[in-house]
Amino acid sequence: MNVIKNPAKQQWTDLIQRPKIAKEQLTDLIYNILNEVKAKGDEALFRFSEQFDHVKLKQLFVTDTEILESKTLVPNKLKAAIAIAKQNIEKFHASQKTEEVVIETTKGVQCWRKSVGVEKVGLYIPGGTAPLFSTILMLGIPAKLAGCAEIILCTPPNKNGTIHPAILYTANLIGISKIVKVGGAQAIAAMAFGTETIPQVYKIFGPGNQFVTKAKELIQQEGVAIDMPAGPSEVLIIADETANPAFIAADLLSQAEHGEDSQVILLSDNESIIDLTLKELEKQLVCLPRKEIAKQALKNSKFILLNTLDECVDFSNVYAPEHLIIASENASNYTDKIINAGSVFLGNYSCESAGDYASGTNHTLPTNGFAKNYSGVSLESFQKKITFQQLSKEGLKNIGQAIEIMAETEELFAHKNAVSIRLKNIENV
Amino acid sequence: MNVIKNPAKQQWTDLIQRPKIAKEQLTDLIYNILNEVKAKGDEALFRFSEQFDHVKLKQLFVTDTEILESKTLVPNKLKAAIAIAKQNIEKFHASQKTEEVVIETTKGVQCWRKSVGVEKVGLYIPGGTAPLFSTILMLGIPAKLAGCAEIILCTPPNKNGTIHPAILYTANLIGISKIVKVGGAQAIAAMAFGTETIPQVYKIFGPGNQFVTKAKELIQQEGVAIDMPAGPSEVLIIADETANPAFIAADLLSQAEHGEDSQVILLSDNESIIDLTLKELEKQLVCLPRKEIAKQALKNSKFILLNTLDECVDFSNVYAPEHLIIASENASNYTDKIINAGSVFLGNYSCESAGDYASGTNHTLPTNGFAKNYSGVSLESFQKKITFQQLSKEGLKNIGQAIEIMAETEELFAHKNAVSIRLKNIENV
Repeated sequence: MNVIKNPAKQQWTDLIQRPKIAKEQLTDLIYNILNEVKAKGDEALFRFSEQFDHVKLKQLFVTDTEILESKTLVPNKLKAAIAIAKQNIEKFHASQKTEEVVIETTKGVQCWRKSVGVEKVGLYIPGGTAPLFSTILMLGIPAKLAGCAEIILCTPPNKNGTIHPAILYTANLIGISKIVKVGGAQAIAAMAFGTETIPQVYKIFGPGNQFVTKAKELIQQEGVAIDMPAGPSEVLIIADETANPAFIAADLLSQAEHGEDSQVILLSDNESIIDLTLKELEKQLVCLPRKEIAKQALKNSKFILLNTLDECVDFSNVYAPEHLIIASENASNYTDKIINAGSVFLGNYSCESAGDYASGTNHTLPTNGFAKNYSGVSLESFQKKITFQQLSKEGLKNIGQAIEIMAETEELFAHKNAVSIRLKNIENV
Repeated sequence: MNVIKNPAKQQWTDLIQRPKIAKEQLTDLIYNILNEVKAKGDEALFRFSEQFDHVKLKQLFVTDTEILESKTLVPNKLKAAIAIAKQNIEKFHASQKTEEVVIETTKGVQCWRKSVGVEKVGLYIPGGTAPLFSTILMLGIPAKLAGCAEIILCTPPNKNGTIHPAILYTANLIGISKIVKVGGAQAIAAMAFGTETIPQVYKIFGPGNQFVTKAKELIQQEGVAIDMPAGPSEVLIIADETANPAFIAADLLSQAEHGEDSQVILLSDNESIIDLTLKELEKQLVCLPRKEIAKQALKNSKFILLNTLDECVDFSNVYAPEHLIIASENASNYTDKIINAGSVFLGNYSCESAGDYASGTNHTLPTNGFAKNYSGVSLESFQKKITFQQLSKEGLKNIGQAIEIMAETEELFAHKNAVSIRLKNIENV
C-alpha cells in the first residue's frame, strides 16, 4: 500500500495511472480461433473446448433435464436472495424506459424516437471456480426488458461438461433458454458469426479473461457491437471524519479480492481516517479466503491525503473510477460535483457489494478511466433509438426553402431538388 | 440499375449485400501518422498539412478576425436558413433530456441516474469542394445541450489556408470557439492525444474519408471513444401505389449524389411504380451537376418488386437501412413493424433532405447495416449516465442478507464481509 500525503497537483497525472497491463501478443492466436469457428462452426467449438477447456462435450446446448435438475440443486435461501436481487434490478431498469414523445419542431414537422430492442444479443458469463450468476441478472434482465428477441448465453463448462446449477437456475428464471456450454474466444466467435446450431448475434455483452476481451475487441471489426471496452475492476473511496474505517477497509478489500490487477484508492482530508483504515485493512485481510489475491492488488493501490473533500472529488473526476464510494454522512453534498464515475455509492451504508448484487443498479461498468467517455450497462445498452419524421405539405412549405438554400451551399443539388419538386407539386395542386 | 422481380426469400441474403469496399492496407500508414502526432505534436500537424493538404499553415487555430469576417461573407438568406435548422435541431435534441428520477427499489434503497456531458469532445468536419456546415449543427448542437465543457472542431483548410465562411459562421453561431485548421488522420490524432496547443478529447465525432475513418477506428484502442463505425451512405424507399414516382426518383438521386459507393434501394409491391420511377430517374439524372457520381452509385443499386408492403418492411428490417422512406399515404400503418433503421421518413412529403438539414432529427446515422446494433447520434451520444445509490441502515437490513448469500455463492467473501460488518454495527448501536 502506498500512502501519499498532500501531493502537488502536478503529481496527479502519475497518481491516476492504472497498473500497466502487459498487452500480450494475443492477436494472431485469437484471429486464428475466430477464423476457425467462422469456417468450421460447431466442429471447431467441440475441438477448442477439448483443447482449451479440457472437456469432451457431447452437445453444445444445455438440455431441459439439466435446467430441471438445477432447480433442485439450488438451495432455497439462495433462490430467495436471487428473487430479491431480480426484483430490484427489474424495478430500476424498467424505470429507464422512455416514452415516445412527438415533437413538432415547426408547424407540420413532427419528429420522434422509438426505442427498439437489439434483435439478437449474446451474453458471456465467465467460468472459473465460482459461478457468476449475478452477471446473468445484470445482463439478462435489461435484455428481456428491452425486448431483445433472441438471447444467447455462452459459459464454459467444468471438466465434466456441466454448468453450475446457480447459473442454469438464474438463466432459466429470467427466461433465457439458449445456454451454450462454450467459453473463451471460441464462444465470442460463435455468437459473432453464428454456427450450424448457434444463432449469430448483433451485440455481445459480458466480462471475461484476456482471450475473451481480445476476441470482443476484434469482432467489432466484423460489425458486431460490444458493451464496452474492458479493464481491471477498481474502486475509489472518498472518506471524511464521519466515515467508519472498518467499513472502508471492508469495501477496499471487496474490490481487491476481484483480481491481482484490481486497484483500490482511498482519498481523505483526514489523516487519522487513513491511519485507522490501514490498521483495519491488515486486521480484515488475514481472515479472507482470497487474501493472496487481495494482497497483490493492494500493492497497486494508494491512500492519498488531500487538503479538502472538494479536492478529493476533483481528484476522483480526473481518475474516473468504475466505483466511487463517498464514505461520509454528508455524501449528498458532493453529488453535483461528480463528473466522471461509473457508479456512485453515497454514505456509510451504501457498500459496493450492494450494487454488485442486489440494490438494482447495474454492475457492468466502465473501468480503466473509461468512465470519462462510457456509461455502464443499462436498458439503453440493449436498445437502439430510431428517429421518425413526418412532414405535412404545410410542414415542407415551412422549412423547404431553408433546406434548398443549405443544400445548394453544400453543392448537393439533388438534395435541393427533392424539396423543389415537392414544393412545385404542392403549388400546382 | 438492377431490377429484381419477386425474388425468393433465400435470395435476400445476397440482395442485402452492400457494395464491397476494397479495404486498403491503410493501417501502417495511419499508425505512422498517429505516432508522429503523438510524439511531435503541433510540428507534425504543420508537416502533414503541407504533405497531404498542400497548405503551409501559419497557425493552427482560426482567429477571431477570420470569424468576424465570416459573418460578412455569409449571405443573409443562408443565415436565415441556418437559423431555422438550428432552432429545429435544438428543439428536438433538447426534448431528449431526461429527468433524474429516484427509484426506491426496496424500502431504504434509493437508486437513480445522472446524465453528465462528456467533458471533452472533438468534432471532425470534412473538407472538399463544399462546406459541410450542416454537420456542425448536427454535432455541435447536441454537444452544447449535453454540457460538454470543451468542444474542439477540426476541419481541413483549402490551399490558401482558409476555411469556408459557412463553416466558421455556423461554428461560431452555436458557440464553438476552438476551430483547428487541420484535417485527415492527423486531425484525429491531434484530438485523441492532444498537442501543445490542441486539448486531448475523450470522444470523437464526425464523418470523413478512408484515412479519417481508419484513424477513428485505431484510436479506439487508445481509450478514445467514437460516435459509431462508418460506411457509405444509403437509402431504402418503400413505395406503394399512393407514392409519387418523381418524388421517389428525386430522393433516390439525393442519396446517389453523395458518392460512388452510395447505395439506393427501392422496394414496391407495385410494378408500375417501379417502371415510372425508372423513367423519372433517367429524366432527373441528366440535370444534376453531380450526375457522374450518381450514375456510378446507381450501378450498385436495386429496384425490387415484392408481393406485399409487409414483405417490403420485412426486407427493410433485414437490410437495416441508414435512411428509410415509406413513400405511401398510409405510411404510419407500418411504423410498428420497423425494427432496424437509422432514421425513418413517413409519407410523400418527408424527403430525406429534410432530415439531412432542417427538420430537427440528426443526420449522423448508422450505415452499412449497423442500424441493427447502433443508434444515430443524439443528445445521449454526448452524455454519460452515472448511477447513484444511497442505502439507509434500514435499506441495508432489507437486502443485506440477500447480498451475503449471493456473494458467498460466488465465493467472494470480502464482498459478503462489507455487508456483514455493517449489519453487525447496526445491531450493536
